[in-house]
Amino acid sequence: MENQAADLIVKMNVAMWDGQNKKFAELIEKLTEEQLLNETAPNRNTGIYLLGHIVAVSDDLFRLFDLGEKMFPDYLEIFIKSPDKSNKTFPSIEELKSAYYTVTKKLANQFEKYSTQDWLSKHEAVSEEDFAKEPTRNKLNVLISRTVHLANHLGQMAYLNN
Amino acid sequence: MENQAADLIVKMNVAMWDGQNKKFAELIEKLTEEQLLNETAPNRNTGIYLLGHIVAVSDDLFRLFDLGEKMFPDYLEIFIKSPDKSNKTFPSIEELKSAYYTVTKKLANQFEKYSTQDWLSKHEAVSEEDFAKEPTRNKLNVLISRTVHLANHLGQMAYLNN
Repeated sequence: MENQAADLIVKMNVAMWDGQNKKFAELIEKLTEEQLLNETAPNRNTGIYLLGHIVAVSDDLFRLFDLGEKMFPDYLEIFIKSPDKSNKTFPSIEELKSAYYTVTKKLANQFEKYSTQDWLSKHEAVSEEDFAKEPTRNKLNVLISRTVHLANHLGQMAYLNN
Repeated sequence: MENQAADLIVKMNVAMWDGQNKKFAELIEKLTEEQLLNETAPNRNTGIYLLGHIVAVSDDLFRLFDLGEKMFPDYLEIFIKSPDKSNKTFPSIEELKSAYYTVTKKLANQFEKYSTQDWLSKHEAVSEEDFAKEPTRNKLNVLISRTVHLANHLGQMAYLNN
């Protein structure tokens, strides 16, 4: 066992993140522009909003993992701080899809280089002091939480598909 | 690091499973019977079907983890092998909620006793031979996958809430 066990579990968690992103990519490729503009259910978030929301949440990982600046800083206001139908102008679906691939690919490149120790190091939203008390507040736990967040919205976006 | 790292990551994954179940329990308590009988979106699964589906999928873990017999074996046919609106008779919402709590609690009691080594041992649906080649086919990976599955349907069931 020893560290081998930890390496194995990290690999499983990163594979689940990659797997949910693969499903997301397949879904946004399968859906037409018209479908993505629709609401996922009556009076619920549209596909385009959820697409932008997922990009914005993933893009925030660069800051949270101290990997550099956000690639699409404007998305925070439009897709996280504001609800859908806020009358804010959305980027086009082509732009959003391209942003999704850019962010996901750049994150994947960084994650490939992470050791288990990197994954278990603290993220930027927790102080050294709190992290000493709660070592679960690490980067891997953020990734696990984002995987579940993505799965949550994937279930909703699946409703756009006829 | 050593095994401590693996123990920590197991704890994070089990906490995420518990957390999604807590959200699920909160949602089914908040929703009225009438809301649970509704479709989550037009022509999509009803709340009651998804509730039964989640119970059936969790109940299947007893078999997969060699923890004994299914508690609600009939649910397999109704909520996994058959789609919603199959004309099969569903148990009442009260029965399904009670079944959900019974299964989830019994699983939690078993999971409390699991060591990291138990979590990383093979599940019942993989052969010794295949497991030797693919050590990620372990119990923890099943739990991670079931957590994401639950999150997926939670996103849909949230649409029942006004």
